Amino acid sequence: MKKALLILGLVLIIASVTVYAAPKNPFVGNPKEEYYMVTFASGIEYWRGCFAGMKDAANLLGVKTTYTGAPQADVNQEVTVFEQVIAKKPAGIAVTCANPDGLKTPINKAIAAGIPVVTFDADSPSSARYCYLGTSNINAGATAARYMGKLLGGKGEVAVSTVTGQLNHEERKLGFIQTLAKEYPKIKVVAIGNDNNDQTKAATLVAGFLQANPNLKGIFCTDSLGGVGAGVALREANAVGKVKIISFDTDKGTLDLIKEGVVSATITQGTWNMGYWALQFLYNVKHNLVKPAKSWKNKGINPLPGVVDTGTNIVTKSNVDAFYNK
Amino acid sequence: MKKALLILGLVLIIASVTVYAAPKNPFVGNPKEEYYMVTFASGIEYWRGCFAGMKDAANLLGVKTTYTGAPQADVNQEVTVFEQVIAKKPAGIAVTCANPDGLKTPINKAIAAGIPVVTFDADSPSSARYCYLGTSNINAGATAARYMGKLLGGKGEVAVSTVTGQLNHEERKLGFIQTLAKEYPKIKVVAIGNDNNDQTKAATLVAGFLQANPNLKGIFCTDSLGGVGAGVALREANAVGKVKIISFDTDKGTLDLIKEGVVSATITQGTWNMGYWALQFLYNVKHNLVKPAKSWKNKGINPLPGVVDTGTNIVTKSNVDAFYNK
Repeated sequence: MKKALLILGLVLIIASVTVYAAPKNPFVGNPKEEYYMVTFASGIEYWRGCFAGMKDAANLLGVKTTYTGAPQADVNQEVTVFEQVIAKKPAGIAVTCANPDGLKTPINKAIAAGIPVVTFDADSPSSARYCYLGTSNINAGATAARYMGKLLGGKGEVAVSTVTGQLNHEERKLGFIQTLAKEYPKIKVVAIGNDNNDQTKAATLVAGFLQANPNLKGIFCTDSLGGVGAGVALREANAVGKVKIISFDTDKGTLDLIKEGVVSATITQGTWNMGYWALQFLYNVKHNLVKPAKSWKNKGINPLPGVVDTGTNIVTKSNVDAFYNK
Repeated sequence: MKKALLILGLVLIIASVTVYAAPKNPFVGNPKEEYYMVTFASGIEYWRGCFAGMKDAANLLGVKTTYTGAPQADVNQEVTVFEQVIAKKPAGIAVTCANPDGLKTPINKAIAAGIPVVTFDADSPSSARYCYLGTSNINAGATAARYMGKLLGGKGEVAVSTVTGQLNHEERKLGFIQTLAKEYPKIKVVAIGNDNNDQTKAATLVAGFLQANPNLKGIFCTDSLGGVGAGVALREANAVGKVKIISFDTDKGTLDLIKEGVVSATITQGTWNMGYWALQFLYNVKHNLVKPAKSWKNKGINPLPGVVDTGTNIVTKSNVDAFYNK
């Protein structure tokens, strides 16, 4: 009995020493540590891809993540949700902004309270957020232009179906047109129209494009519903294959049309990377792992990179399967 | 003796179980895993800040980092060094490119061999590198313009001392001029000159600015030696305080002049963040932690954000101490 106790004692001592000696890993978070993602129009599929990345990072780091947001694309509603999140004293917040200035005051309030904040997908550049992670839409349009250039062998007539007046779509259009003009001068943009992110409107618009421009060889749709609508128009006009469609984003409808060969390609945004690196950035600030200077707090020094262009990828028949349910 | 052996045996069993039971943390690297930083003009102080960030990340993740580079700013020399690094089969490479296209072939060779590569500070955009981390020099110039706007209360004459024909300096100048024109229309740029990144030339240039423009209120120097030279000129002309200097980077000479009140501010680049996140990115790819799609290898899908603007900070008397020896 005495010996058994002695052995047990020794084992416990060794075990304690082992535990004590294990170096504290800086990337093992506290499971109670909670990071929030705040969105607007919170039910849309698009945000799921962003939150998937945030959740993956949280699982790897052993911390908690919670998704919340304003049901509508309403900035006042989003501010209310954001204020509720601040009240919970979270470890960090990743927010996409219904409008750039509307979230400024609550973001600055959170930062002042010591809660790290980064924005993603839609920025609030005048706020004190530490970083913005999103797509450079000008670059995304340029990527579409270069792929169109390859598809058409460098020449032909093309059209653009877009959402007029909405900044991200205007930038995609601009990047597309500018890049064609510079790198593919033999490709002419002969028509530009507003599909208002509506499948039926896009189908009507593209049917008009095809009728008015019998030599049309390509269409760039800056929104996914535009791409699906353009597909409908191409089928009705028996123009599948003759006219190449490059669309945007990776909802199921678009991916299916790529599999069927109706849409040639779609530009996918780095939604997973937005969420993954948003959480990594917040965690690294929260745990004081970032040292851009000897000390940075209360010194007007931003601890993180200011802007991350999460980039785009081109989805075609050859890699489309990797994007289903992602 | 028997008992001692029994105890030892039990202790070993428990110890093994303890080790075995410890969950494998994805952020505990293999100490033999080696990540390289490759530079050109490898002796300059500027890279030290970048490597400091890379080393900090490596220490936290428990992996090895090695600094190497071409002694001269010579692209052929750098390619040779890069090829030697590939031959060592490293876990990843962060490289700054002596020229954009010169490193393209070796970078693509490394990627094809399964070695993750990111570029920092100076990019090779046409290569297959996964990410570029660096300063947006247009934004850096805009930051200088806005701070100049504040310093001068929104009006007055200013001059620019720059390195003519060098892309990063041209962009800083452009961002400065464009932002003043847009946001501070009452600030006029009355002189622009080439200091060739040489302290003596800058002193002569700025002395000329002061003589020719008796109402000059501010000078933006796009390079650190320009700022130090401008300080000399201001002292000689008894214009310290009357004319505000905003300089670039944080070498000791510039920081000293800020402490002395000769230079009002300097724009510091996110060098630490370049190195820190370069290593984090490489590590996350190497360890298969990034999942931008169900699978990304050999599918033309980039695993990382394409571009990180590591941003800038404004260094003034109030926070200058945080930047010495950093």
